[in-house]
Order: sequence, then structure tokens, then C-alpha cells
Amino acid sequence: MDDIQRARRRFIKAGFALASLPIAGSRLTLGQTGQSDVPKRDANDKLMAYGEPSRFVTSERIVEIPGSGGSHHDPFGLTNHLLTPLQDSVGIITPASLHYVAAHAGFYVPDINPAEHRLMIHGMVDHPMLFTMEELKRFPSMSRIHYLECNANFPKARDKTVQEAAGRTSCNEWTGVPLSLLLNEAGVQNGANWIVAEGAEENKGTYCIPLARAMDEYCLVAYGQNGEAIRPQNGFPLRLLVPGLEAINSVKWLRRITVTSEFYMTYNNMGRYSSIDPNIVKTDYVQGPKSVITFPSGGQKLPSPGHYEITGLAWSGAGAVRKVEISVDGGKTWKEAQIRSAVHRIAHTRFGMSWNWTGEEHVLMSRCTDEKGQLQPTPAEFNSRWKPESRGEAHPNFILPWKLGRDGMVQNGLS
Amino acid sequence: MDDIQRARRRFIKAGFALASLPIAGSRLTLGQTGQSDVPKRDANDKLMAYGEPSRFVTSERIVEIPGSGGSHHDPFGLTNHLLTPLQDSVGIITPASLHYVAAHAGFYVPDINPAEHRLMIHGMVDHPMLFTMEELKRFPSMSRIHYLECNANFPKARDKTVQEAAGRTSCNEWTGVPLSLLLNEAGVQNGANWIVAEGAEENKGTYCIPLARAMDEYCLVAYGQNGEAIRPQNGFPLRLLVPGLEAINSVKWLRRITVTSEFYMTYNNMGRYSSIDPNIVKTDYVQGPKSVITFPSGGQKLPSPGHYEITGLAWSGAGAVRKVEISVDGGKTWKEAQIRSAVHRIAHTRFGMSWNWTGEEHVLMSRCTDEKGQLQPTPAEFNSRWKPESRGEAHPNFILPWKLGRDGMVQNGLS
Repeated sequence: MDDIQRARRRFIKAGFALASLPIAGSRLTLGQTGQSDVPKRDANDKLMAYGEPSRFVTSERIVEIPGSGGSHHDPFGLTNHLLTPLQDSVGIITPASLHYVAAHAGFYVPDINPAEHRLMIHGMVDHPMLFTMEELKRFPSMSRIHYLECNANFPKARDKTVQEAAGRTSCNEWTGVPLSLLLNEAGVQNGANWIVAEGAEENKGTYCIPLARAMDEYCLVAYGQNGEAIRPQNGFPLRLLVPGLEAINSVKWLRRITVTSEFYMTYNNMGRYSSIDPNIVKTDYVQGPKSVITFPSGGQKLPSPGHYEITGLAWSGAGAVRKVEISVDGGKTWKEAQIRSAVHRIAHTRFGMSWNWTGEEHVLMSRCTDEKGQLQPTPAEFNSRWKPESRGEAHPNFILPWKLGRDGMVQNGLS
Repeated sequence: MDDIQRARRRFIKAGFALASLPIAGSRLTLGQTGQSDVPKRDANDKLMAYGEPSRFVTSERIVEIPGSGGSHHDPFGLTNHLLTPLQDSVGIITPASLHYVAAHAGFYVPDINPAEHRLMIHGMVDHPMLFTMEELKRFPSMSRIHYLECNANFPKARDKTVQEAAGRTSCNEWTGVPLSLLLNEAGVQNGANWIVAEGAEENKGTYCIPLARAMDEYCLVAYGQNGEAIRPQNGFPLRLLVPGLEAINSVKWLRRITVTSEFYMTYNNMGRYSSIDPNIVKTDYVQGPKSVITFPSGGQKLPSPGHYEITGLAWSGAGAVRKVEISVDGGKTWKEAQIRSAVHRIAHTRFGMSWNWTGEEHVLMSRCTDEKGQLQPTPAEFNSRWKPESRGEAHPNFILPWKLGRDGMVQNGLS
């Protein structure tokens, strides 16, 4: 806890007193904290079985439906999103109820009875297999904390909040069977190079994934999300989890895995989503280092000059976050932030830095360095690397600046 | 991932094929996985804003209302519990909706408007202070994954399930300000030895805690739970978090901290809950190493002989779990289980072991060794250490055995 101890010393040194009210010299008695008559509510049977947030908490996902013009990632305007309210987030876990959703054909979800659900593994295997959910749970399982991010998480100048600009990423504890265990059970044949994973929704959400990636220890056939069954909107009862790659690899409502020798060009594998060159899988395909400041962020207002905690989330598809830096002068100078959570590989990591705002204008930025030494690029660096015609393949991990005005209002700093 | 690799080799060596159906030689075409016509549901506005579990998932908390006779921990029968369904748990995170609740005066909860809530810190401090929620969030925060457990989590022979026997423990990511930062802001005076923490509920849930513990880096004034605001039943908007001690220390709906020189005998500090000897704080007061097998557990049934994953949760108030062992012969022999999750200090840790059940009777047990080398005791060891009259002070961490019958039924093995 060196960071907190340093912060403590810094606070004391600065005579930091916040906007709190010193109640000098008065001895207070019970009942004087302003809330001696707190209203109360009886929990009903439903709330006793399964609790809910306070009625005063209004943090919600918002719906993003692309215009008819489509986007880099969705030329036909078919993908709708439910966006995670990152501006309200604390820690690294996203509540399952607030996990972002990318929906490729409206917001319906398959209404699957897990007792009837099956996973088939077939194709270039010695023993094609069909698993019930009960059978899958007999295998050794692993639980890991990982983020998932849609490659459509592309901040634009028009986005007013961090939810709009970057709310297509969330981080959960996922539990499941390593896919490699199941593939080894089935016996992968020589010459196999790819798997085709298929979901149970109407358009099947099929995706073709390199076999080497499918055999990676991190790749799970997941049935658990934050300690309970996966939520319907996130793939109940079964989801392929391929951490570090754009989340469209993590096929929801998983019901079939076909082992193949050749790449299959599925709808979701179209050029706009990813390259078909298998070599790219090992390089650009892995999502790069990224971070966003969640407070203060677009649409929020600092009530007055004084001490604040600048905080946000950092992550990388290539592994653990090694370092996060913060700039309050638009990238001229950088200062290392503190890590304020556990650090897991391929997971959101919470960072923070105490800052005394004196009332001037500032441009706030964060940048992440991951365990491979990769540094999050500026928008200019990102644009020079990815030409407009290939940006649909890129992980949009450029720095997202926030402009803080003299009035305390925070606005998107992208141009 | 050595554990998974070992399991894989073991499975292959044993020609492990589960109860899956080999589909030899048939080439399957799309639509043959038995679910080509999956029903679907449109998400309504409420479900888009904040998702819910599948209608097929029935995992719920159950209500425990002690009989008029009371218990070791609750002589007057005033404490009701909502018990976490550990038998359905996966991973280490408990969904906030399923976090256990200990309620000392019925299941009502204070209905607090966070904009009006205040935390007062006063007593033996140089600068008594009053904080709004917004002010508290300006301080550096930390997020950590910790379990909380009620010392009433005392398995009895009559408990049919692991939920009844041990459902008074849960594990969440908690976010908040280190209490030490706030106490240092206020300036603790010489001669101070205790804090009295008070909640906003009707009976105030007041608890007296040693100052040394309050200054510990792990002690948080928490406003976040699993990435969102703390749930009303768990203390919204503010809860003291004192990891490693019985959860009654972690005062819910926190509104006041009084720094004192002397121990204050609050209702909750009564002898039945804990010793008043300050020296005990540093020894027996910290919860010991504990574990429970969650599958297979009481009330569950193994459908047929074959391979299964024995899995459960282990934790210790003294730090990290170092090792978990499993016995299938009532404690005669022990085998080291695999760790199936991240290992955090003072947190639930998921363990597992592949096991081939041949259809005989077995008594399944788990035992935890923590980072201090402390070993979870047997019921006999626990009983010889804690006399009946002092058991109310003990952390009931003895081994919980499950009897597996030839019919596959699992029953409580305590006598």
C-alpha cells in the first residue's frame, strides 16, 4: 500500500481539508448526524431471494442504434449496443446486469432451457461429441477475471460521455472448462487449423478462430459469470470466451464447434471485422493497450476547485497492465498513476491519482503500457498507422482526451 | 496452468469419455444440434437498462429465522439471515444480489438518499469532520476482493445443504477510502485506543473496534460493491469494511465514527459476539482457515458413477489460502486439490479436484491451510478447544463432511 501511504503523506503535507466542515470544539451526542430518522423499507420476498440496487441509484446501460449510414465496423447498421456506464464504475468488476451487449439482430435473446442445451464438437476430430450442461460441469473448471471489448468501441468526437465513447467494454469473472480439454477429449486430427464456433441465435453468430488460439489455456467454454450462471444477454447457458481478441470471437449461446483445415469466411469474419490472414492472428489481432479516464469524464462537472481523484480503467489484450500515466496538460507531461485494484492479465485494472484542481482549463489524458511494453497510441499515431479503409480491422485504442473548463464542465477533447 | 495440464493428461490416460455421446463417422450439417428453433425473447426497456438472470435460473437466497431458543450467537433470536446459495456458486465472486445478509431487527433496510447522507468522524481527534458522499469520493480509493462471514456461520447436523450450513459467507470486490486516510485527516489524539462505528439503522448496529485494526491498510470506508454502489441490504451508501474479522465489525449504513480511549460495550459487542479483552483482537479474533465443498454437497445427487469435479471454496481471515486438501474417506487420507481461481488475501478461493466415483459410499471433506500455516480443525478439535460456554466467541471453522451414498445422494456428515 505504498501508493496510499504516499497519498496520505501528500495530503497531510498539503494541509488537505477538502470541503469538509470542521466542527471545532463541539462535543456531539448521538442523533446529531442529520439522519436520526432514516426512513426504512421492508424487503419483500423477491428482494430477500435476490436483491436489487437502491432506488436512488440510476446507473444504467444506454442503447446505441447506429444510423442508416453504418460505421467502420458495421457497414449495414445491423449492430446495436447496450453501453456500460463507465462514468459510474468503481473497481474492476462490471455488474453482470450492466455488462455491455453487442446485438447483431435486434435485442432479442435466445430463451434457452439449459436442460435441453447441447454442445457439439465435431469435424476433424477422432470422436465427435455431444455434451449436456451437466456433463460439461464434470470437467475441471477455471475462473478468471477478464475484460471483453467490442472492436466497435471507437471513440468519436461527437460522443458526449465515456459511456458513449468507450462503453463497449466490461470486465467479469468468467468460469468454464478450458476448450483445450474438450478438444483433446475429441481428439483433434492432423491437418486441423481452425475451429468454427456457432451460437444458437437466429443468425448463429458464427465465428472462425485459429486452432492455436482455441487451444490456448485462457480460452474457456464458459457457463459462469460473476459467480452465477451467464446472463441471457451474454450467452446463457454457454459462451466461448477468447480473452484478448475482439469480443466477437467470444461466441454467445455456444452450441457447436467444428474443427476444420481451412478458414471459413463467416458473416462475422467479413473483412470489416477482421483480416482473413491467419498470420495476423498472432500480431495485430490481439487487442492493444488501452485506458480511459472515467472520472472526471464527459458530462460530469467538478463543483469547485480543490482536491479530486482522477480515476479510470486500463487494459490490454496482450496481458497485464504494467503502468498507467496521466497528463493534465494535453500530453505535454505525464505522471505515473497509482494502481488501485488487483492486476489480472487481460483484465480491467483500476488506476487513480490525487490532483489539486486550481480552477484553470486542462486537457486530461491517460495512457497505458502493458506487460509487453506496448504503449497506448495518440489519436494521431493511431490514424497514421491505420488508414481509413483498414480501420475496421483495428482495435481503436487511441488516447481519449477530456477537456476541463473553468466552469468545471468536462467535454470530449477529440477533434 | 499446470493443474489443468495434469488433469488433461490424467483424463486422456484414463480414456475418460464422460457420459457423452460419440457420433461416430457421421458428418453433420448445420441445424442438427437439436436447437435449430430456439425460442427468443425481446428485451424490454428495463432489461436493456439493467439485465437479469435467465428465467431458468432459480438460484436464490433462503431465509433463516432462528427459533425462539436462539443460538450460540444470538441468544435472543433477533438475528435473521438471508443465506447465499453456495451449492450453485462458481468462481469466487458472489453476485451482489445473492450476498448473504444478517439482519438484527427484521429485514427492513434504511432507505437512504445518498445526497443527504453524512459520515461524521469525531471524539478524540484534532479536527472533527463531516463528509458528504461526494467529498469521500475525492479521496484516493482502493478496490479489493474480500469475503465477509458472520460468526453465526456454524454448521449443524440438522443443516441439509451447504447453503443452510455455511451460507453466511460471501465474497465481493469492495471499493472505498482507507479509513486510515480519514482518521489521519481528522488527527487522532494521543491516548486514543478504540473507534465506535455507528450505522443509520434503527438499532444503529454500533460496534467498537480497536484503533490499530481501524488503521490497518485493509480497513475501508466502502461505497462500492462489485463495481456499483453498495446494495441497500449490504449498507448503501456507506459501509465500514474490516476484512478478516467477523462481519459484524463491518458496520452497515455507516454514519459516525467516534474515536475513544476506552472500549465501549455496545449491544453487538456483548460477550456472545466477541471477547472484550483487547488482547484477543490480535489473536483469536481474526477468523481462521475454513473451507466447504460446494459440489457435491448436501441435497445434491450424482446421477451415476463416473468422473466428477469436486469443488468448493476456501478462505482465511489471516490472509491468503496456501493449500486445500480433499479427503474422500472421512479424513483418513488427504490429497492436495488444485486452485481454480485467482488467490486474493482474505478472500474466497475456488478449489477443485477431478475424481472418479465408482459407486461406493464415501465421506467427502476439505481442509484449508492459510498463509500463516494454520490448518482448519476437525469438529473434534474445534470442540475440544472451544467449550460450549465460549463457542459464541469462536469462528466456527471446523471441517464440514458430506456423506455420499450408493444411490448418489449427498447428506450432511456432522453428528
